Amino acid sequence: MTELRTLKVALLGCGNVGAQVARILIDDAEALAARTGARLELTGIAVRTIDAPRDVELPRELFTTDADTLVKDADLVIELMGGIEPARSLILTAIQNGASVVTGNKALLAQDGPTLYEAADKAGVQLSYEAAVAGAIPILRPIRDSLSGDRITRVLGIVNGTTNFILDQMDTTGAQFADALAEAQRLGYAEADPTADVGGLDAAAKATILASLSFHTRFDLENVHCEGITGVSAADIAAAKDAGFVIKLLAIAEKLTAADGREGVSVRVHPTLLPREHPLAAVHGAFNAVFVEAENAGELMFYGQGAGGTPTASAVLGDLVSAARRIVLGGPAQTETTNGQVPALPIDAVNTSYYIGLDVADQPGVLAKIAQLFAEHGVSIEIMRQTIHRDADSNVESAELRIVTHRATEAALAATVQAVKGLDVINSVTSVLRVEGV
Amino acid sequence: MTELRTLKVALLGCGNVGAQVARILIDDAEALAARTGARLELTGIAVRTIDAPRDVELPRELFTTDADTLVKDADLVIELMGGIEPARSLILTAIQNGASVVTGNKALLAQDGPTLYEAADKAGVQLSYEAAVAGAIPILRPIRDSLSGDRITRVLGIVNGTTNFILDQMDTTGAQFADALAEAQRLGYAEADPTADVGGLDAAAKATILASLSFHTRFDLENVHCEGITGVSAADIAAAKDAGFVIKLLAIAEKLTAADGREGVSVRVHPTLLPREHPLAAVHGAFNAVFVEAENAGELMFYGQGAGGTPTASAVLGDLVSAARRIVLGGPAQTETTNGQVPALPIDAVNTSYYIGLDVADQPGVLAKIAQLFAEHGVSIEIMRQTIHRDADSNVESAELRIVTHRATEAALAATVQAVKGLDVINSVTSVLRVEGV
Repeated sequence: MTELRTLKVALLGCGNVGAQVARILIDDAEALAARTGARLELTGIAVRTIDAPRDVELPRELFTTDADTLVKDADLVIELMGGIEPARSLILTAIQNGASVVTGNKALLAQDGPTLYEAADKAGVQLSYEAAVAGAIPILRPIRDSLSGDRITRVLGIVNGTTNFILDQMDTTGAQFADALAEAQRLGYAEADPTADVGGLDAAAKATILASLSFHTRFDLENVHCEGITGVSAADIAAAKDAGFVIKLLAIAEKLTAADGREGVSVRVHPTLLPREHPLAAVHGAFNAVFVEAENAGELMFYGQGAGGTPTASAVLGDLVSAARRIVLGGPAQTETTNGQVPALPIDAVNTSYYIGLDVADQPGVLAKIAQLFAEHGVSIEIMRQTIHRDADSNVESAELRIVTHRATEAALAATVQAVKGLDVINSVTSVLRVEGV
Repeated sequence: MTELRTLKVALLGCGNVGAQVARILIDDAEALAARTGARLELTGIAVRTIDAPRDVELPRELFTTDADTLVKDADLVIELMGGIEPARSLILTAIQNGASVVTGNKALLAQDGPTLYEAADKAGVQLSYEAAVAGAIPILRPIRDSLSGDRITRVLGIVNGTTNFILDQMDTTGAQFADALAEAQRLGYAEADPTADVGGLDAAAKATILASLSFHTRFDLENVHCEGITGVSAADIAAAKDAGFVIKLLAIAEKLTAADGREGVSVRVHPTLLPREHPLAAVHGAFNAVFVEAENAGELMFYGQGAGGTPTASAVLGDLVSAARRIVLGGPAQTETTNGQVPALPIDAVNTSYYIGLDVADQPGVLAKIAQLFAEHGVSIEIMRQTIHRDADSNVESAELRIVTHRATEAALAATVQAVKGLDVINSVTSVLRVEGV
C-alpha cells in the first residue's frame, strides 16, 4: 500500500454524537482512509471534564480541556459541543487557521450562520453541517446540489424527534401533553429541560437552515414564526383523529405571494393537521422526514433517524470524508448560493386552511349564525360538523362544532376567530390549528 | 451585472426527458446562470429526425442530425438518446475532448460503465448520471457523498414505475397481469414493447449502478440475478394480500456471508412479498423509492417521481449545474470510489424467506408430511395456513396451503420446493415468491 498523507482531526465535544464519531474514526480508520485518500487521525477530543462518564470507551490520552490549542493544530475540526460560545469562537479560529469545519450546531447556525459562512468563504475552507438538520438523513446536500437546477417551492419537515414522539404517544394512547412529555423524559427522548424542543425552537433553527438552502437566501431565526406543542390537548388530537387527521409539529418554508402582491418566503413552525394518508403522517416516534416540492422534480421525501448518537455520527462522517477529499484532491469549498434575495414574509401573509373547534350552545340557528360570520370575513368553509353530547346525569346537552376552512389569509382567519369568540352562542373556542396537505 | 462566462451545452436526444431539459435550459437561463456562475448556452440538440413531433416547442435552428460535430464543440454534453450506440461513442468523444458529461443511460452504464468511468477519470472530467436511477429522486449523490463515512449494508429499491403501476393495478382491482399491462399501455405507463420493464432488465441495470456506488465495487449486469413480473398471477397477489403482504418488484443489493463463509454482495431483481406496513409497501403507481440500510445511519428512505420528462429533467439539471460549477470554480471531478473489491455472490448464496402456495389433497396427514419434508431440508416454517374450498356444484373439496418460511439459503429452499413437487399429496405448486422486510 502506498503511503497515505495524514490529516489531523480535532473533535470538540464528546456527548451522545461526539463519542460515536470518535469511536467510528478509530474503529473504521482503514475504510475511511481508503475512501478519503488520506488517513484521518483523531488528534484530540476537547471536553469540559476529562473524567466524565461517556457512552463509549475511548483512549484517555485523547481527552483535553484545552480546545483552543487542539483546534489550532488541526486540518479538520468537528464541532459537536452545542451552544453559542465557545463553539462560535472555536469554529472561527479553526476557519482562520485554514481548517475545514464540520458542525451539527443548528442553534449557532440559525443565530449566527452568516458570520460563519462568510468567514469560511473568505478563507476558502469547507464548512459543512448536514448533521444539524434531521440527524442521519441526507437532506442538505440533495437540496444544495441535486436540486441545484430546479426551483424548490415548498419544504415541510418533521425535524424534531422529541415532539414527534410526544404527539405520537398522545395520538396512540390518548394521553395529555404533560403525561406524554413525562413518558418521553422517562425513556430518554426528551431532556430534563424540554423547552427548546416542545417550544418549537429547535425545529425553528432547522427551518431556518432548510429555508436558506432551499431559497438561496440567508434567513435567520427572527424570520421564523414559531409555535410549539405545549398548547396541543388530548381533545385536539382526538378531534383531529376523528376527522381523519393527525397532528404533527411541522417546520415549513414555502414560496408564496401575499394578498398585497408581495412575493417571498414564509418560514414557520407550528402544530399542523395532516391527512392520515399524507406521507408525513406515517412518520412515527423519533424518526424524521422532510418533504420537498420542486417545480420540476415534483414531490420528494427523505426519511430516516432524526437523532441519536450513531445515526447523527453518520452525517458528521459523511461531511468529514467529503471535506477531507477536497483537501486531498484540491478544488474549491462547496458553498450554498445566496443569489435568491427573497424577502421573508410575516405569518399574516400566509395562505392556509384552519381547523377550528367550538363549544356552542345547542339551539336552532347557531350554525347559520357562524356560517354567516365566516362568509362576512371572506373565509370559505370546507367542512362543518356538529356533534351533540348529552350528560347522562344532568341531562344537559352541549354541542361541539368542528370547522375546516378552505385556504384563506392568516389575517382573515385570525379576524374570523376573534369575531366568533364574540358571538353569544359560543361557549368557547376549544382549538385553532392550521391544516396542510389538503 | 458582471459579464459571466458562457459554457456550451450540447444535448443528444430530444425525447420525453430531453425536450424538458431543453425547455428548462431556455426558460430558466437566468436563474441557472446565477446559481452556476456561468451562462449555460444550449448550442444544439442532436436528433435522428429534425421534424419529428415533440412534447415541447423548441427553436428549429437548435436541431441537428450531426451529433458528432455538436459534441466536439461543447463544454458540457447531456446524453439522453438511450441505447448503446451511438450514445457510447459520442460520450467517449465528449470525454476525450475534455467535456463533462451528464447521462441518464442506465442500460449503457450497466453494460459498459467501467469504460466510461475510466475514460472520464483519465481525462479528469465529470461524468454524472443521477437521472439514470429513480428519476427525480436524489439517490446516487447521497450514497456517494453523504454516506461516504458509513458502511451501507443493504439497498432495496422500487426503481421501475411501469411494473409498480402494473402490480398496483393487480393489487387494487384483482386484474390479471395481461389486463393490467394492457391498461398501463393504454395510459402510457408501459411501452408498446414492455419487455425491458416487465422482464426486470431496466430494474437490473439500476440495481447494478446502486450496488456499485453502495459497495465501492464495479458490478455489471452479469452479476445480477433477474426475474421479472410476468409470472405473477392475480392469485399470487390475492393470496399475498390475504396474508398481509403486498408484491413489489424490488432491486436488491445486500452484503452477506454465504453458508460456505464467503463474504460478498448479492445483486438481484425479483418480485418480492413485503409486509403491508413496510415503508416501501406504500409506494404506489409511477412513484419510486429507495430504502438504504447503513451501519451507523440505520434505515433511510428516498421517495419521489421515478420517471416522466420533467421530474427526470430535474435530476439532469442538478448534475449539469454541479458539473458546470466545477468548470467555473476548478477542482477535481467527483468520482465514485472503487476500493471495495467485494465479490458478487450468486443467487444460491442468498439467505431469504420464501412464500410458497400449494394446492394439496384434502386428506388427513398432509400437513405433517409437508412439514416433515421441510424439516428434512433444514428449512424452518414460520407460518402454515390451510384453507378448504368446496365447489358448490361438484361438492368436491380442495385444500390450499400457504407457507412462509424463516430465512434459509436459496439452495435449500429450491431443493425443498423440488422435493415438495414430488409428493403424491400435492396437486400443484401454485406460487413460489421471496419475502423481504419480515
